[in-house]
Amino acid sequence: MAVLVTGGSGYVGLNVVQALAAAGREVVSFDRLPLPSVAARAFAALPGRIDQIQGELRDCEALARAIASRPCEAIIHTAAITSGPAREAADPRPVFEVNVLGTIGVLEEARRASVRRVVITSSGAAYGESLYRPGLMREDDTPVLPTTLYATSKYAAERAARRLAELWSLQVACARLGTLIGPWERDGSAHPGGVRDNFGPHSQLAALAVRGGEAVLPVDESTRDWVYAPDVGRALVALADAPALAHFAYNLSAGIDWHGDVQAWCDTLAKRFPGFSWRLARAGEAPTVHYTDRARSNMDVSRLEGDTGFRALRERAAIHAAFADWVERHGAAWWAATV
Amino acid sequence: MAVLVTGGSGYVGLNVVQALAAAGREVVSFDRLPLPSVAARAFAALPGRIDQIQGELRDCEALARAIASRPCEAIIHTAAITSGPAREAADPRPVFEVNVLGTIGVLEEARRASVRRVVITSSGAAYGESLYRPGLMREDDTPVLPTTLYATSKYAAERAARRLAELWSLQVACARLGTLIGPWERDGSAHPGGVRDNFGPHSQLAALAVRGGEAVLPVDESTRDWVYAPDVGRALVALADAPALAHFAYNLSAGIDWHGDVQAWCDTLAKRFPGFSWRLARAGEAPTVHYTDRARSNMDVSRLEGDTGFRALRERAAIHAAFADWVERHGAAWWAATV
Repeated sequence: MAVLVTGGSGYVGLNVVQALAAAGREVVSFDRLPLPSVAARAFAALPGRIDQIQGELRDCEALARAIASRPCEAIIHTAAITSGPAREAADPRPVFEVNVLGTIGVLEEARRASVRRVVITSSGAAYGESLYRPGLMREDDTPVLPTTLYATSKYAAERAARRLAELWSLQVACARLGTLIGPWERDGSAHPGGVRDNFGPHSQLAALAVRGGEAVLPVDESTRDWVYAPDVGRALVALADAPALAHFAYNLSAGIDWHGDVQAWCDTLAKRFPGFSWRLARAGEAPTVHYTDRARSNMDVSRLEGDTGFRALRERAAIHAAFADWVERHGAAWWAATV
Repeated sequence: MAVLVTGGSGYVGLNVVQALAAAGREVVSFDRLPLPSVAARAFAALPGRIDQIQGELRDCEALARAIASRPCEAIIHTAAITSGPAREAADPRPVFEVNVLGTIGVLEEARRASVRRVVITSSGAAYGESLYRPGLMREDDTPVLPTTLYATSKYAAERAARRLAELWSLQVACARLGTLIGPWERDGSAHPGGVRDNFGPHSQLAALAVRGGEAVLPVDESTRDWVYAPDVGRALVALADAPALAHFAYNLSAGIDWHGDVQAWCDTLAKRFPGFSWRLARAGEAPTVHYTDRARSNMDVSRLEGDTGFRALRERAAIHAAFADWVERHGAAWWAATV
């Protein structure tokens, strides 16, 4: 039986497809766009089988065809518009059409095809205003006060999925993702049809490192609840595979203190890429690296660990080493490619 | 300048239209359906002017025509699908299309027409799971854990409106309504095109009282955070009119203990309608009156009172007397009418 991954050509989706293919699984990747060629070449060496079905999430018939293409035991639903403020101000509707109605469409098709479990990907961003207060975010107790359309749509999709799971007797689990760092991120505004408006500082720096040059960092740090992207892929597979789950929503992040990590990552890159250097911005100088938000509090990840046994990498040096290996191997091709 | 009321032919909307017309205001009522004839006749005696524009909320052009029909200073947006479990299981998409995308459409048109303020109507139901815990619901501190698609869509519309208000520099206020009791409620499943699946016990009993007969109540009481419907109309107008508002979200309810109210309402009705009687269900007997949910905690209404000066009626005897007057005057025609 296959696992269907929606948004398989996106940042989260590529990490899920890779985790499944690395484990020798059958994968159906459903996306508007084909797998990026650099990723497709890398995944070809893995033991799993990957079928691609191209289609738009809002097109229920395309989704139905993808699910009908092979018997699917699970769906991991990562397709989403990760909108920034400019997109939200200019064109708010598609954020809800894709992120909420698209999720309902996935559940409708899962029900029709008797798929055993659907894993939907929400976001730590859903906690919204609570992220800027001290303390760990807990799945059921922290006020969920989403501020952006993206975060609001993610929380709405969560709660809609929870309701429909109950009404339709479906097995649905929901992961609230921390901010991914690691392989397969690109600047959504820089590739055709991109729907990911954020481009994290770790990837910005890595893309700069492979080109060569000097990074100028903002003086004020902005730590996030980061998590190594391949861990997110593996954890979502663990949620799809777990025999039974005691909860609906699971925080999914590394759960560690990331203070100072951007500078440490710069140091790692500088050792590997001699043409790369970095420094802090001088007074009045514009940084060349930007953070996508101010500092946020972390999520409590004990529920995911307790219920699935999954543990994300927590050693920053190990994460940096693994990510830097990927950057050396694929970075130049990845950030140069447009498809 | 007029005030546009979306959903003007619905339960909340009729109470808003009435409050505006009673205050001598100009009203544009926008709804798929015309004003119900019983209400239209009653409102004709009021000093205000009511124009009706028929159209579907999802039809942006119809909404634009309504807003362009007269200069509008404010929009009070009450149009919504108030879905119950059967509708949610059978047809989940329209709940989000109308309640979320429809709200975005209202804000888009308000921005285009430079409307001074938009008041959107959310629901105490948005608090969801928190409603079944002790303590008062507070706008910013209580975890918002909507359980139904209706409640989820209402919270999503709230947060989307808050975001777009910021991005577009619009004045938007949001009222989280308690459960209305009072004039102009009907069983949404009993009239053509109805989108209100709930029909509260007070109206069920009043409809029975005007027909005559015996009501059989459930033995277990289910109190709610009730509020007199005309107060909701007046409070929404107060939110539209307030010169400046310090907050975005406002709980709007009576804020009183309603314990024992359904039986007290039965006693009021029995005095006014000699053909009506009531009793509790016997062991194993099916009640003829149903509650739409189990007991819920109340909302804290101090923010609304502090910021607008508005105070809802809190004397249950006064509410019952006013509602019973309306039932005597309009109830027979109202619950007999299909349009």
